[in-house]
Amino acid sequence: LQSELDLVERIARLVAVREGVALGIGDDAAILDVRPPVVVTQDLLVDGVHFRRSTARPADVGHKALAVNLSDLAAMGADPVAAFVGLGIPAEPPLTDGDVDEIYGAMEALASRHGLTIAGGDVTSAPALVLAVTAVGSMPPGRAPVRRDGARPGDLVCVTGTLGAAAAGLLIADGRAADVDRGLARPLVDAHLRPTPRLAEGGILADGGATAMLDCSDGLALDCLRLARASGVRVSLDLAAVPMADGVAVAAGAAGEDPRILAATGGDDYELIVALPPARVAAAAAALDVPLSVVGAVHAGPAALEVTDAGAPVRLNRLGWEHGADPAGG
Amino acid sequence: LQSELDLVERIARLVAVREGVALGIGDDAAILDVRPPVVVTQDLLVDGVHFRRSTARPADVGHKALAVNLSDLAAMGADPVAAFVGLGIPAEPPLTDGDVDEIYGAMEALASRHGLTIAGGDVTSAPALVLAVTAVGSMPPGRAPVRRDGARPGDLVCVTGTLGAAAAGLLIADGRAADVDRGLARPLVDAHLRPTPRLAEGGILADGGATAMLDCSDGLALDCLRLARASGVRVSLDLAAVPMADGVAVAAGAAGEDPRILAATGGDDYELIVALPPARVAAAAAALDVPLSVVGAVHAGPAALEVTDAGAPVRLNRLGWEHGADPAGG
Repeated sequence: LQSELDLVERIARLVAVREGVALGIGDDAAILDVRPPVVVTQDLLVDGVHFRRSTARPADVGHKALAVNLSDLAAMGADPVAAFVGLGIPAEPPLTDGDVDEIYGAMEALASRHGLTIAGGDVTSAPALVLAVTAVGSMPPGRAPVRRDGARPGDLVCVTGTLGAAAAGLLIADGRAADVDRGLARPLVDAHLRPTPRLAEGGILADGGATAMLDCSDGLALDCLRLARASGVRVSLDLAAVPMADGVAVAAGAAGEDPRILAATGGDDYELIVALPPARVAAAAAALDVPLSVVGAVHAGPAALEVTDAGAPVRLNRLGWEHGADPAGG
Repeated sequence: LQSELDLVERIARLVAVREGVALGIGDDAAILDVRPPVVVTQDLLVDGVHFRRSTARPADVGHKALAVNLSDLAAMGADPVAAFVGLGIPAEPPLTDGDVDEIYGAMEALASRHGLTIAGGDVTSAPALVLAVTAVGSMPPGRAPVRRDGARPGDLVCVTGTLGAAAAGLLIADGRAADVDRGLARPLVDAHLRPTPRLAEGGILADGGATAMLDCSDGLALDCLRLARASGVRVSLDLAAVPMADGVAVAAGAAGEDPRILAATGGDDYELIVALPPARVAAAAAALDVPLSVVGAVHAGPAALEVTDAGAPVRLNRLGWEHGADPAGG
């Protein structure tokens, strides 16, 4: 416990207190000066499940643990204010002071970029490295949080950026796509290890007429199914329209996978999936610094996801999508 | 992932949405209607570290994971609004649907009692059962959060309720105090497994002039040292004044431990430690439904803890306190 006190003091020295936080690390609780509505999200990252200490550096793990939570705030159109970090520390392999500095240093770098404060948390022993992050955000004046349940028949379904890079990077990191040229592999592995939360983009889309939004954490197809269920609508998704990241075709080919299926079902891209009225799409796209691609459309319910590839229906299985009937009907 | 969707839906059905929560489980983030200051705390509970699945039922684990966070809100004088629960699920021993129902059922029972909402979280695989809970609270009008750093020379240090029951219960649960009568053992084991957060008491003490407050989670002595460090004061603690819970003497005796040391250093009691001006102590005690005991006093710094037993100095070692010099000087 004495060493827990020391560790908390070490962590407190690594982070800065920014706007919106009246009291940070060190008390029973933090005190935030945030106006309602307050937006709160939580994600757990566990070694062996979400990352591997053998292939991810401590800085990567810290970055990703915070980034995936900020991505959830982005998907609400919220501005980040504070994050709370629960760190589970394994005995083997040991977590050094340098590892702790790397983890919190990477989180603090991301926090600094987005104006938030690492305002509290917990440290404890655990059988594996665990990062439990809770992020708190607020809404700028005049902007309401964008939920998943507002998509309306007639809306178009769009996605920011490109997809498949993180899934391709995972194939490479795992040695399943070993022959990929290093210059091509590096940005893919980085996309897997160090996702970029689309915070500015979330705000622009919220202000630009988004009727529903969520982040693409478990693959475009599954997340579109979530959108369909939450909004009580049928979502049609066109595989041929999915924007594929550079290098995905090569990496998928090296691993014997279909690149379009990888792009549509691979997780961890943390792009934003947004429903927009057709009349709002062009202006939203013009306001963004990243591409905005129309990948589908919203139709009257019942809630279902319908995937097509150049008109032919495509079916999901556990690993991806198979050609065939609609997986999510009914 | 399909099963993750099912599990989240199962959990969502177990919990009710209460005042202050505009959107609960099921979106990228929850939306809270809370006015500033907003109070946020987080605690991680890990199997084998904070509990053992062999001796704690799933309902005990769920209760405790939420209770320890509510205790932190109580120590700020805050009212609970929402909790976010990250559940790490081990493959072995497997967590059944019934276990999940027990865990969230116990949390929901506690949430219902205190008017808060389990508003979100995460579920994932993990090498051991992990509960990462973040609790969010708000302040009633006219009440400011009570921090640890406000204790002033001349204040008295008081503690609610009695101490040592949880530590004695752990001795019994671990089989280290095997000969204790069952009628005596049960409430001690319950104190260890199912702590009661002192929420009403925290509010009364905040309104009653508390200059500093924290919850007693790691033992009175260590938490008084934290109070001393945060406030930059010397805290004197009198072992002879520590209010001992019923049965602690018997259980400590059966385990060959000094009961007063167990009461002063055993953790997990989740009583409140509060600094009060002497003139405010009697009224605060009268307003509470539990005893309030004066256990020490606040003196001018430098920050240190000074423990005495009938005038003789007592020294801390890793397991408890030894007679001798001050451990925390300087």
